[in-house]
Amino acid sequence: MNASRSALSAFAASAFVKVGLPPEDAATIAGLIADAEFQGSEGHGIMRMNHYIRRIQAGGVNPKPNIRVVEERAAMALVDGDNGMGHLVMKRATQIAIDKARTCGVAWVGSQHSNHAGPASLYPRMALEHGMVALYFAVGNANHLPPWGGLDMLLSTNPIAVAIPTHEEPPVVLDMATTVAAYGKVKTKAQRGETMPVGWMIDRQGNPLTDPKRSAEGLLLPIGGYKGYGLALVFGLLAGTLNGAAMGKDVIDFNADDVTPTNTGQAICVIDPAAFGDPLEFRKRVDVVVRDLRESERMPGVERIWLPGEQSHLKARRSETPIAPALQKSLDALADSLGISKLGERA
Amino acid sequence: MNASRSALSAFAASAFVKVGLPPEDAATIAGLIADAEFQGSEGHGIMRMNHYIRRIQAGGVNPKPNIRVVEERAAMALVDGDNGMGHLVMKRATQIAIDKARTCGVAWVGSQHSNHAGPASLYPRMALEHGMVALYFAVGNANHLPPWGGLDMLLSTNPIAVAIPTHEEPPVVLDMATTVAAYGKVKTKAQRGETMPVGWMIDRQGNPLTDPKRSAEGLLLPIGGYKGYGLALVFGLLAGTLNGAAMGKDVIDFNADDVTPTNTGQAICVIDPAAFGDPLEFRKRVDVVVRDLRESERMPGVERIWLPGEQSHLKARRSETPIAPALQKSLDALADSLGISKLGERA
Repeated sequence: MNASRSALSAFAASAFVKVGLPPEDAATIAGLIADAEFQGSEGHGIMRMNHYIRRIQAGGVNPKPNIRVVEERAAMALVDGDNGMGHLVMKRATQIAIDKARTCGVAWVGSQHSNHAGPASLYPRMALEHGMVALYFAVGNANHLPPWGGLDMLLSTNPIAVAIPTHEEPPVVLDMATTVAAYGKVKTKAQRGETMPVGWMIDRQGNPLTDPKRSAEGLLLPIGGYKGYGLALVFGLLAGTLNGAAMGKDVIDFNADDVTPTNTGQAICVIDPAAFGDPLEFRKRVDVVVRDLRESERMPGVERIWLPGEQSHLKARRSETPIAPALQKSLDALADSLGISKLGERA
Repeated sequence: MNASRSALSAFAASAFVKVGLPPEDAATIAGLIADAEFQGSEGHGIMRMNHYIRRIQAGGVNPKPNIRVVEERAAMALVDGDNGMGHLVMKRATQIAIDKARTCGVAWVGSQHSNHAGPASLYPRMALEHGMVALYFAVGNANHLPPWGGLDMLLSTNPIAVAIPTHEEPPVVLDMATTVAAYGKVKTKAQRGETMPVGWMIDRQGNPLTDPKRSAEGLLLPIGGYKGYGLALVFGLLAGTLNGAAMGKDVIDFNADDVTPTNTGQAICVIDPAAFGDPLEFRKRVDVVVRDLRESERMPGVERIWLPGEQSHLKARRSETPIAPALQKSLDALADSLGISKLGERA
C-alpha cells in the first residue's frame, strides 16, 4: 500500500485525539511523524504509532502536559516537558531557541521530562526556515551500547543532528546515531524480515549478530570504536545529565516498560548566521562547498557523491510513501482497537 | 632524553621570542604546547616547533597580531586573529566565551584568520576551571579526507572536543578527529619509524596504506564511513564557513606551504551549568555516570574501562616526558639555528 502525507498525518492525528491529546497537539505530532516518514526516517516514522499510543494508554506519557520553562537566561532555557510527547516539547524548545538566537546570536535550550521526539533532524530543520544553523543532541530511550571494552549496556545510540542553511542547494542536514546503526534501523530490519549487515551488532561473546529478531541479546557497535563511545557519552551528558534528565543507568527501556516516565533529555543549539556577517554570503559559501564536494572525482563504481540530508530532501518531495504489509497490518489493528478509520481508507 | 614541563616550556618560549613574538605571547603558546605534550597529545606538542618557527620566519604567521572582536552579540563573538598563532587567538576566544556564558548561560565564539592551535581539547579544558562545559570545533590545516565515495581530498580531519566538569572524578574530555586517525598521529608514526594499522589510510585504488612515509599518496578514512564524512563536513562549516574562514578547496596545506596565510577557523561554545540548576549537583551526577561506566562489566581480556580524557589526566601529572632521539635531533638543530640553549641544557 502507498499512503499520502495527508492520509498519514490525518491517521496519526485521529489516533492521538482518541487517546486524549488536544487536537492541536495531535496535529503537531502527526505532522512531524509524517515529516519523518517522508524524509526517509522510517525507523522514527509511522511504525512508531502503536508504541506511542500504547505508552499513552498505559499512563507512561502525559497526554495533556504543562510544558514550561523552568530555568532561563538571555541565551538559554531549560524546558520541563511534564512527560508530554517529545515532539511537543522539542518543538517548543526549538521555537524558544530561535527567538533567543535572533537577539543573542546563539541560544541553547535543554529539555527534561520529555519523551521520544522522532528523528533528530526534525528540530534543527525548523531553524532552517529562519535561515539559522542548529545542532541537536538527545539521549536515546533504551540502552544498547556498552562503554568501549565493556558489556553492560549503559549508553544509548545518543544522536547528533546538525542543519546548515544554503542558498540554492538543498540544506546540509546531518542526522546520525553514534552507533554504526540506529536502533530504529534494527527495528525496521526486523519488521521487514531482513538480516542486518555484519558490523551493526555483536553478541556478548563478541561475535557478529545479524538476525534483528535476536537484537535483545546483542550490543550495538559505536562508530570508530572508542570515538563513537566518547561521542555517545558526551552527547548524553549534554542532553541528559546537564538537564537533570535520565542518562546511563537511569535510562528507561521504553520498549520493555510502558508505564515509567522516561525523563528524556534533549538539547538544541541555534546559531543566527546574521550575527557573524551577511547571512546571504554565508549561505552562498555553503553552496560552494556543497557543489565542490558533489562535483569532485569519484571512486570507481560510485555513481554520485551525496551531501548529508540531500537524499532526505529529495525523498520529502514524494507525494506517496510505501507502507510495508506487516506495518499496514499493525496500523489496521491499531485503527480497529481505537475505532478510527484505517490508513487505507483515507484520501 | 626526558624533559620537564618547565624545560619544554622555556625552550619553546625562547624560540618564539627569537622569531619576534612578544615574551608574554611566547610564554602563553609555550605553556599550551607543554600542556599538549604532557597530556599525551604528542602529535600537537613539541614536535610541531620546527614547523611553527619555520612558518613564522617565512612570513606565513604574524608574530605580533592585533587580535580583535569584529562581530558581537550578547552570546556570541567573531574574533579576527590577524593571522597570529592559533593558540593566542583561541585562548582569547575562549576567555570571551566564558565571560559571556556567565551572563547569558551559553556563548559561542568563532575565529577567522587564525592558525593551528594545538590539540582541540586545550580550549574546552579552560572552561573546566570555571566549572563550565565547552565544545570546540576546528578546520584542520591540510585536507586529507575525500567526501564519502570520492577521491579529491576536500576535507580535513576537522576535530571536535568536548569538556565536562566533574566533582571528584577526572573531568570528561573528549578530543577526537573525525577520521579514524588524526594526521598528527600519522606524523608521529613516521617520526618514530613505525607502520600504521590497517584502517587508518587507503591509497587511491582503495587498498590499505600502512607506511606513514607514503602518507602524501593516501587518503584518511572517516569514522563510521559516511557518518564521519558528515561530521567532518558540518564541523568544518561551523568552524570555517560560518566564520568566513577557509573550508574545502580554500584550505591551505600548511605542511607544503609556509607563506600563504591559512585563514584557519575555529569555534568554541561554552555552557554554564549554573544556568541549568545547582552546578555542584550537576558535577556529582557526572561523577555517578563516570563511575557506573568504569565499574561496569568488562569484555574478556579488557583490564580497565577508560573514560574520555582520563588517560590524559593521568599523563598530565608526570614530571617528565620522553623525547624520542629523532625529535631531539630536530629540536637541537632548531636551537642551533636560532642561537638558543638546547632542550637538554635546560633544567
